[in-house]
Amino acid sequence: MKTLIKGKPRNYRAVWLENGIVKLIDQTKLPEKFSIVSCRTSGETVSAIKKMIVRGAPSIGAAGAFAFAQAVLESENFNFQKLSEKAELIKNARPTAVDLMHSVERVFNKVKDCAEISECKKIAVEEAQKISNEYIEVCRKIGDFGSELIKNNVRVLTHCNAGALATVDIGTALAPIRAAHAQEKNIFVFVDETRPRLQGAKLTAWELEQEGISFAVIADNAAGYFMRKKEIDLCIVGADRIAANGDFANKIGTYEKAVLASENGIPFYVAAPLSTFDFYCKNGDEIPIEERSEDEVLKIGKNFISTKTARARNPAFDVTPAEYVTAFITEKGILKAGEIGKLEN
Amino acid sequence: MKTLIKGKPRNYRAVWLENGIVKLIDQTKLPEKFSIVSCRTSGETVSAIKKMIVRGAPSIGAAGAFAFAQAVLESENFNFQKLSEKAELIKNARPTAVDLMHSVERVFNKVKDCAEISECKKIAVEEAQKISNEYIEVCRKIGDFGSELIKNNVRVLTHCNAGALATVDIGTALAPIRAAHAQEKNIFVFVDETRPRLQGAKLTAWELEQEGISFAVIADNAAGYFMRKKEIDLCIVGADRIAANGDFANKIGTYEKAVLASENGIPFYVAAPLSTFDFYCKNGDEIPIEERSEDEVLKIGKNFISTKTARARNPAFDVTPAEYVTAFITEKGILKAGEIGKLEN
Repeated sequence: MKTLIKGKPRNYRAVWLENGIVKLIDQTKLPEKFSIVSCRTSGETVSAIKKMIVRGAPSIGAAGAFAFAQAVLESENFNFQKLSEKAELIKNARPTAVDLMHSVERVFNKVKDCAEISECKKIAVEEAQKISNEYIEVCRKIGDFGSELIKNNVRVLTHCNAGALATVDIGTALAPIRAAHAQEKNIFVFVDETRPRLQGAKLTAWELEQEGISFAVIADNAAGYFMRKKEIDLCIVGADRIAANGDFANKIGTYEKAVLASENGIPFYVAAPLSTFDFYCKNGDEIPIEERSEDEVLKIGKNFISTKTARARNPAFDVTPAEYVTAFITEKGILKAGEIGKLEN
Repeated sequence: MKTLIKGKPRNYRAVWLENGIVKLIDQTKLPEKFSIVSCRTSGETVSAIKKMIVRGAPSIGAAGAFAFAQAVLESENFNFQKLSEKAELIKNARPTAVDLMHSVERVFNKVKDCAEISECKKIAVEEAQKISNEYIEVCRKIGDFGSELIKNNVRVLTHCNAGALATVDIGTALAPIRAAHAQEKNIFVFVDETRPRLQGAKLTAWELEQEGISFAVIADNAAGYFMRKKEIDLCIVGADRIAANGDFANKIGTYEKAVLASENGIPFYVAAPLSTFDFYCKNGDEIPIEERSEDEVLKIGKNFISTKTARARNPAFDVTPAEYVTAFITEKGILKAGEIGKLEN
């Protein structure tokens, strides 16, 4: 992703593996500070996933694959049982995003029949790198397909951050926006600030600014207002897990925006790679929803925003039924919920 | 309203007039600090309304009436033109809430034919006090009528603060909740934090805590999630202005919650006094919507939540069409939108 360092453009991925060390753009520090965290062990990488130093389903998927590769690199000999346990531990770092499970399983399956630990190490690193590279390729395709939906002078609403930071590079929801911008279309992005963690205000705003794409941050409460005023033409969001019937989990608030878009006749698209589809999951009711700490709601930085003894509820994701989705933008093209079955091969 | 000062319950109004001085609970400082601001001149009171030291349609209405009474007290002789200009100035302190216009006009009409400035001063103060006292009486009735809608073990969602702070005392949306609590019904309140100014997290949470009513603060994004999970039985909000057809303006985000309640089959009530109805306003399109400073979105306290050069849009209110309102809870009873005409007398 384009990153201005002291005004000069440089190119970064959200996560990469370098000499056995997992490197991450610290997403908890942006936009105040651009910094890279180095995770020297598999345990450190898992901890970074839990602390949301890296977040976004595909970026977590890549980080998980790298964490498993690190676990293999840390092994003195090949022990199926131990590696299987490591894989489970990494897969459980966060519950909702299915990419993490898919990518760790993919690396595990690649090495599970290895005869030799040295061969195993080589294969694990290669496969994890491949997963990470594939995300970028896939996002590029999502951008190409999705940009056809974005005509000149379109005003897009997006929720949370489904940008390059969330997907190793380029983005899912932001891929069509980046592509349309590269095609010199005039676009404007309404950025839901996305409480409680403000990934929209912090990360999406930062990414759009690096690219020179026009935007305004809005309170999540204001999305409906702008839809009703006909100031939003199109919504694009990412996804953390998409069930076989097209119900999908994404950042809390996505369901609200989808219902409002439907009520106002505004197309609502979900941009996601195949790795985010969970064909074992019949519908949205089967997707586990992570409830996170009350403090994410009750504090901003170190300051309380409510009384010091207030309680809060903090579901991190919600499920949006397929009926509210106009279509899914994938690397295989743009599909209606009823066509998802075609992808399962 | 019940206010615990060092653990001891005391009783306060949000705004009152005492020896020509308008006293206000400083709503920009709660819940961190309970403090009273003294406005010694009409100009100071108008400034406090603009700075939102006092907010909420009825509290602004009372403060405006007091500000006009202060303008009369500051006059050396009776000058129709000057007082008329003062009235306009006070009425324009904030554009959306209609109570401010109604209450200033009411005091102005009462004094405009006075022969003597001393008589004028007496009448202005009396009328302003009457308006303020009437709000409390009216809120009590809203509480009585509304509490019938709140059965035992009901879970209510409310947005922003339509409590005692917003209405001199007792509240509009919070009046039925206070009354149900006094009737020893078991209730639980979901409090929308209400970005950008967080009046839910700050003020509603504070009020409920003083009363010992159970609640959880939620991100505005999470209201739809809890509705869909059937964890919310009922929504009650206040209003800043209600048009003749039942369309109403209220804090930004109200429209979103109303659409979501409708989609999930959850009753959605608007609690408001007659003074909030604007029969001159045919429908919601005629209600002016205040856009406030971008900084309300981009900063929390002194800290930026986005990039330092990000732009924002910040409409302070939205309009919810009457079709989403189950009924209006007023001091005259509970009415459907189609019955609003009955109130116009």
